[in-house]
Amino acid sequence: MISAIIRVRLGASMTIKLGIIGAGRIGRLHANTLTTRVPGAQAIAIADIFEASAKSAAADYSIPDYTSEPAEIINSGDIDAVVICSSTDTHCRFITEAAGTGKQIFCEKPIAFDLAEIDAALAAVADAGVQLQIGFNRRFDSNHARIKQAIDSGEIGEPHTLTIISRDPAPPPIDYIKVSGGLMMDMMIHDFDMCRFLLGEVEEIYAMADVMVDPAIGEAGDIDTATVMLRFENGAIGTIENSRQAVYGYDQRVEVFGSRGAASSGNWHPNAVTISDASSVRRNLPLHFFIERYMDSYIAEMIAFVEALTKGGTVPVVGNDGRVPVLMAMGGMRSIAEKRPVRLDEIA
Amino acid sequence: MISAIIRVRLGASMTIKLGIIGAGRIGRLHANTLTTRVPGAQAIAIADIFEASAKSAAADYSIPDYTSEPAEIINSGDIDAVVICSSTDTHCRFITEAAGTGKQIFCEKPIAFDLAEIDAALAAVADAGVQLQIGFNRRFDSNHARIKQAIDSGEIGEPHTLTIISRDPAPPPIDYIKVSGGLMMDMMIHDFDMCRFLLGEVEEIYAMADVMVDPAIGEAGDIDTATVMLRFENGAIGTIENSRQAVYGYDQRVEVFGSRGAASSGNWHPNAVTISDASSVRRNLPLHFFIERYMDSYIAEMIAFVEALTKGGTVPVVGNDGRVPVLMAMGGMRSIAEKRPVRLDEIA
Amino acid sequence: MISAIIRVRLGASMTIKLGIIGAGRIGRLHANTLTTRVPGAQAIAIADIFEASAKSAAADYSIPDYTSEPAEIINSGDIDAVVICSSTDTHCRFITEAAGTGKQIFCEKPIAFDLAEIDAALAAVADAGVQLQIGFNRRFDSNHARIKQAIDSGEIGEPHTLTIISRDPAPPPIDYIKVSGGLMMDMMIHDFDMCRFLLGEVEEIYAMADVMVDPAIGEAGDIDTATVMLRFENGAIGTIENSRQAVYGYDQRVEVFGSRGAASSGNWHPNAVTISDASSVRRNLPLHFFIERYMDSYIAEMIAFVEALTKGGTVPVVGNDGRVPVLMAMGGMRSIAEKRPVRLDEIA
Amino acid sequence: MISAIIRVRLGASMTIKLGIIGAGRIGRLHANTLTTRVPGAQAIAIADIFEASAKSAAADYSIPDYTSEPAEIINSGDIDAVVICSSTDTHCRFITEAAGTGKQIFCEKPIAFDLAEIDAALAAVADAGVQLQIGFNRRFDSNHARIKQAIDSGEIGEPHTLTIISRDPAPPPIDYIKVSGGLMMDMMIHDFDMCRFLLGEVEEIYAMADVMVDPAIGEAGDIDTATVMLRFENGAIGTIENSRQAVYGYDQRVEVFGSRGAASSGNWHPNAVTISDASSVRRNLPLHFFIERYMDSYIAEMIAFVEALTKGGTVPVVGNDGRVPVLMAMGGMRSIAEKRPVRLDEIA
Repeated sequence: MISAIIRVRLGASMTIKLGIIGAGRIGRLHANTLTTRVPGAQAIAIADIFEASAKSAAADYSIPDYTSEPAEIINSGDIDAVVICSSTDTHCRFITEAAGTGKQIFCEKPIAFDLAEIDAALAAVADAGVQLQIGFNRRFDSNHARIKQAIDSGEIGEPHTLTIISRDPAPPPIDYIKVSGGLMMDMMIHDFDMCRFLLGEVEEIYAMADVMVDPAIGEAGDIDTATVMLRFENGAIGTIENSRQAVYGYDQRVEVFGSRGAASSGNWHPNAVTISDASSVRRNLPLHFFIERYMDSYIAEMIAFVEALTKGGTVPVVGNDGRVPVLMAMGGMRSIAEKRPVRLDEIA
Repeated sequence: MISAIIRVRLGASMTIKLGIIGAGRIGRLHANTLTTRVPGAQAIAIADIFEASAKSAAADYSIPDYTSEPAEIINSGDIDAVVICSSTDTHCRFITEAAGTGKQIFCEKPIAFDLAEIDAALAAVADAGVQLQIGFNRRFDSNHARIKQAIDSGEIGEPHTLTIISRDPAPPPIDYIKVSGGLMMDMMIHDFDMCRFLLGEVEEIYAMADVMVDPAIGEAGDIDTATVMLRFENGAIGTIENSRQAVYGYDQRVEVFGSRGAASSGNWHPNAVTISDASSVRRNLPLHFFIERYMDSYIAEMIAFVEALTKGGTVPVVGNDGRVPVLMAMGGMRSIAEKRPVRLDEIA
Repeated sequence: MISAIIRVRLGASMTIKLGIIGAGRIGRLHANTLTTRVPGAQAIAIADIFEASAKSAAADYSIPDYTSEPAEIINSGDIDAVVICSSTDTHCRFITEAAGTGKQIFCEKPIAFDLAEIDAALAAVADAGVQLQIGFNRRFDSNHARIKQAIDSGEIGEPHTLTIISRDPAPPPIDYIKVSGGLMMDMMIHDFDMCRFLLGEVEEIYAMADVMVDPAIGEAGDIDTATVMLRFENGAIGTIENSRQAVYGYDQRVEVFGSRGAASSGNWHPNAVTISDASSVRRNLPLHFFIERYMDSYIAEMIAFVEALTKGGTVPVVGNDGRVPVLMAMGGMRSIAEKRPVRLDEIA
Repeated sequence: MISAIIRVRLGASMTIKLGIIGAGRIGRLHANTLTTRVPGAQAIAIADIFEASAKSAAADYSIPDYTSEPAEIINSGDIDAVVICSSTDTHCRFITEAAGTGKQIFCEKPIAFDLAEIDAALAAVADAGVQLQIGFNRRFDSNHARIKQAIDSGEIGEPHTLTIISRDPAPPPIDYIKVSGGLMMDMMIHDFDMCRFLLGEVEEIYAMADVMVDPAIGEAGDIDTATVMLRFENGAIGTIENSRQAVYGYDQRVEVFGSRGAASSGNWHPNAVTISDASSVRRNLPLHFFIERYMDSYIAEMIAFVEALTKGGTVPVVGNDGRVPVLMAMGGMRSIAEKRPVRLDEIA
């Protein structure tokens, strides 16, 4: 006869119960990841101020409970960790509150647009002795990890320059741009994190930027194209190129050049097929956007978060890793405004 | 307060309950896939004649029940469909028995090494009016699908030639080789399926083969290197190259050349990073073997199987698609033995 | 004051005087090469039975003399070596005559379509003690040389299989096809040579072929698409794929797979630029045909010829290297006719 | 009998007689090109202050006359055009003198390190009504020409950003560096020209630079690594990255990103062969340095020069094209010194 039901692999001590705050695009992505791809994770509730969103996400990803009150998750005695995917202006408040109830915390980037607010939240985290991981998922991408390995192993020697090309396939809606903190805070912040991940801290930044894609973005007070030059503390020089619109799709390339060689990443495409006909030798466009391109790194960052909590280590992207890129974005914006290189210690 | 538990997205009528027979490598792979990646699938039991294997797989993939008796799955009234992952010599028996209890059936390749046995099993399936899908997962790979699209859309015109290079990273254990049916039945059978998937039925086959990798393979009565030339019914000419050992990893490439162009696939690598140093410009080896390389197609074939059952359509790889490649393998083996081209109608 | 005229670098003893026979496309190519790119070569005369062709080539490439009588070149006491670029049916006659006057000989491929004729010419060469180089220029291509090096150095271990894909951009005129000796003698003969260059002698050949490109080619008694499988004396297995028409241009790829790795060549393109737009990621078509693709190897073969003569060594592609590919073409044609594998010792 | 000697293709009216000044590496390169690859060119004399150098070059390239006195070439009534390949400090003097005797002029880059000196030389050229072509050979490279075509044809829309990566395989000798004008004047000047060739005039420049490769370069007063950001008059933003030492060889890549797509060039390698073994999938290093990489463009620029003279058109890279990159280099050097963005109109 078919035997009795078997308990899942992970004993109680190895499982962590999570509550998700925010059921928008990124909240749903993490809901999906946590419920199907992360060993040891149990997403037991999801909150969204729009109850219908929370309800629908709960149904779609088989999450037992939902609510329109984030506080219910923060205060729940059943929940070990919160995953904060709500709008940026709520991040610091939820971090502080969750730290207050002893929750472990995962928070999406950027933490906030204001350094004082960030510093207060990080202090609350430190006081509570909980962990905070920031959602810089790209560190977990296999390309970036390979480049990091090439640096750390000495394979390419002492790094001299870093070049990041990072272009979105299309700008977000103007309404989003208005609350996004701007290109540097919303988009280039990932590249600022990548700079630090690969080559360490930055001393100085110089930026040129403009509205080239859509005048409406300029009318909303933002830029859509920006190039930045950075001087690292270790002496290396970096450049970042951002555009809100690459018509051929998401363009995500990094190159580090050093004394013994270079490591350079290309884009991923949906297939590895080349078509040759009378007009060209061609392939399909790159993976369209971050959901397609970075799905594996979203999974990997959550696996790392849950592993750190269940096994007792330190989470891999800490609060300060969330703070410094905000500072760099501020430096970049000041450089544009004042048309001069800006040292980060002018701001911090 | 946190609200009541929400039912999962899929209503009862849209969910299918599956039992897996065989908890070896491929059985575990499907167990993982079915429990985490296939909407509408509920893997509720797994069987293996080694009870410990069944137990361990059930625990690892949170499958409620396990058993050492495949018959318990076949006879269970709770189970809608069976996924047959046991050894090849048991496939036809389980197909026939499962058809007898009205189960829908997914069966790994090859169905069997004997045509009469296959024909009897397919007749049982037809009599029972159930569906049978064969595990030719590669049809669901994004590269092969893109090449198929290039053919079907007319993008490369009328197909003239097909070239398949298909090499494993390392031979299986000699004990496995002895029961595998040989390279043509165990390995090239996937390429025979690919031929039919892309260009249709084959009329004639000529093979050259030898033991080049390991004399022990020859002593076990098999070959480890084989090249085959095929004539398709539509006039196209195909070649397949197989080796049991490519030291650089799994090599899976297909090219179709036609009157208006060619479609040609490359390998996938774990990252898209190029390292340049004083010795070479290089990248990491291709994805190592079928688990890494074809994971997405294993998922996709199961999604297609479950969708066909829950939505009422026909499964995408039917019994005859399992039968003909066996016939082709027989033709290839006869060609090697008799050193001449062999028409498939000599065998069928 | 500007000083006296300086003698050219090469002393008299290091210069060789050449006469070119045939001022068609390939004769003009060699005329250009010899007059501008080959140190030590002095092309002093060119012959063509159409005097206007000889005259025009002489003018275009600054060759001092021209004639409508090849015999004038063969009998000239001023000429050290002849370069035979006339039609195939005249090759053996000119080889024999030139050997008779003690000339060194370069002759385009194929030597002839008839083995007895070839053997007589080679005997004349041997008797005269002169050297004969056959125009298998592809041996001098940087791709093929790199693959050869990978084999010879042991970099890819013991060779197991060889795959050649060789496609022309468009068929020659039907009138040419009628006198060409057919696809195997005119086109695949280069690939037969490549087989021997890379892996040595071939024992057996099996061919499938058809008319897929243009019925007029079939009416002219030829085929336009052919695939061949070869067994080498060293046990390796080869395949060659030929098509008279790849709409995307000249397709010239070779792969050798061995016990320790593989060496695989790609096509050359006119530039290394990738264009990405909303429809595709693409590049320009490969170099169009043999003139563009193999210009460097035409130069290199002539440099090697002249160097062997001026420095006293052996030319790199000897008479037997011209003979065996003709034999292989015969084997391939017999295989098509008799629908069976053909051993070369059935023919030779 | 072999007929009378035929005159070369080019009639007297279509041939131009050139004298080369400077028999160093670049002078010898042009000597070789002019004597073998440029229709219509007759290099009839070469000068070098080291007579042995002139003599040896004359012998090697079959140039009838040589001299240690550049003035003999400039004053010769037989010479139509001079090719100035001497050291930079002599360029303006020779340009002015050659213009004075009505010679057409080709001059290597940079014209000079001093704007007043350049302006005087350009004025002399204008007064004499002769033509002056500057040796920015890279404009004639097939990669750069393809990118230019992508811009001019609208294929990639309105240009937004330009990225140039340009790295030498190894630094020149320190003695050369001392007289080179520095990295920006000697090396990045080519990239400044490429900026103008592709996107037009530049308004502003910001540079970060350092000594990362060899302290001796710093002791010589130069830098070996530099990154520059540029604002074009049309609003586009550019970046240039230079290093004196890429251990993997000459790295020459350009990317232009625009509203409708991107055009991006890769390096050229000596062959298109990929080697796969147990350690990596790799290819040979890029072509080593400018001689190998840009040989075709050196030929093409000379063909263009001679064609413009023989056919009556305007040379393709005029005096101002030589002047502005010098200005840009000055802007870059001032930016480094003053740690601020510098507008070119501050200098000009």
